[in-house]
Amino acid sequence: MRSIEVCFSPKLIHLHEVKGKLVVVVDIFRATSTMVAALAHGVTEILPFADLEACREMQKQEYLIAGERNGLTAPGFELGNSPLAFTNGKYAGRKLAMTTTNGTLAIEKSKGAAEILVGAFPNFQATANYIRSRNLDVVIHCAGWKGRFNLEDSLFAGALAQELADSHTNADDGALAMISLFSKEGPQLSSFLAQASHAKRLQNHGIEADIDFCLSSNLYTQVVGADKKGAMVVF
Amino acid sequence: MRSIEVCFSPKLIHLHEVKGKLVVVVDIFRATSTMVAALAHGVTEILPFADLEACREMQKQEYLIAGERNGLTAPGFELGNSPLAFTNGKYAGRKLAMTTTNGTLAIEKSKGAAEILVGAFPNFQATANYIRSRNLDVVIHCAGWKGRFNLEDSLFAGALAQELADSHTNADDGALAMISLFSKEGPQLSSFLAQASHAKRLQNHGIEADIDFCLSSNLYTQVVGADKKGAMVVF
Repeated sequence: MRSIEVCFSPKLIHLHEVKGKLVVVVDIFRATSTMVAALAHGVTEILPFADLEACREMQKQEYLIAGERNGLTAPGFELGNSPLAFTNGKYAGRKLAMTTTNGTLAIEKSKGAAEILVGAFPNFQATANYIRSRNLDVVIHCAGWKGRFNLEDSLFAGALAQELADSHTNADDGALAMISLFSKEGPQLSSFLAQASHAKRLQNHGIEADIDFCLSSNLYTQVVGADKKGAMVVF
Repeated sequence: MRSIEVCFSPKLIHLHEVKGKLVVVVDIFRATSTMVAALAHGVTEILPFADLEACREMQKQEYLIAGERNGLTAPGFELGNSPLAFTNGKYAGRKLAMTTTNGTLAIEKSKGAAEILVGAFPNFQATANYIRSRNLDVVIHCAGWKGRFNLEDSLFAGALAQELADSHTNADDGALAMISLFSKEGPQLSSFLAQASHAKRLQNHGIEADIDFCLSSNLYTQVVGADKKGAMVVF
């Protein structure tokens, strides 16, 4: 059996060995969901940036720039962090540079892994099938909210660990806890998450449609991960 | 309503505001359980030390010294981290200096709080009742295992947050997740925890009796917390 661990925050990822492992970065609301939507709808690559200014600079190289902080589009950016901005195919063929509050930092802090994927419900099954095909131990790296545990990323981790239970043994208490929690709350995921701090924050921004999209499973068959230069692409 | 938050690791406590709040430090296996047992059985005070050497020095001041690292008694120490060492009253009237892998660090990192309590199942109800009597927001600070999330401390946090639900609203996703998880796994706590990484580690050290003790609820009515000089005492 391969192993699976869950890390609840980029501030704890240094306590996990990622070298030689497959890391799945999870930022359900909304960075990794948006990356999956953008690439599934024809964006050719996404360069993640932890820093706003470095991301903005990419406009000079004809990248579309997406920047979000605290749930809102960052000043001077063409796009924020909404997956629904991409679903009409308007940006097909474009390259995207993206920075977000939590997700792009988690990607940055996953460097050194054998492979980096991004995890999201809209391509859940495709991602799980891909992981099963790879002979690698797995670390699920939840982006959290400003370093703190969040519910939606952690429940996704539980869903994925449960889905992979036939091939990957849960190697830490985080995986064990989240498998159990997801088995309880998964059937009413939306209503349970509606109590969560981050979902409440986002509801205040009027993006209920984004939330519904981010919790929809298996809209896409594309698997998304980092290429050799660190850009997110369809595998 | 007062609020309650759960922090899963001393490495994340800086993300929580502890000033003006009541912090409950939790290291179920075994530091906080041992502190409660020692004080309930007549030890007069416990000075926690993050550092082995500083703790050892206290022997010169006629403190009994307890030192544990990685589940084992540290070299040169009279006692390790077993609550059962205290239950026959042998150390009644003594003062204790104590250092452990996780729990004493979590206490150290809780400094600045309005009050610090230690949480353990053996005095669960007494602690909950005391917290209800104090007009303070609460942060439950799980000691974890070397900075990582662990199941037993987190489930205790869920039990306490659930017990206080009539007076303290869950203020973060950690509390929400652990209330739900404890409501599912609480009825079979021992068997669920038997799968946990830390319990497995301890079983390898042949301390099943300690584990049973640490999971026994309401053996004591004493409430344990820090006095003004930072020693743990019966309130």
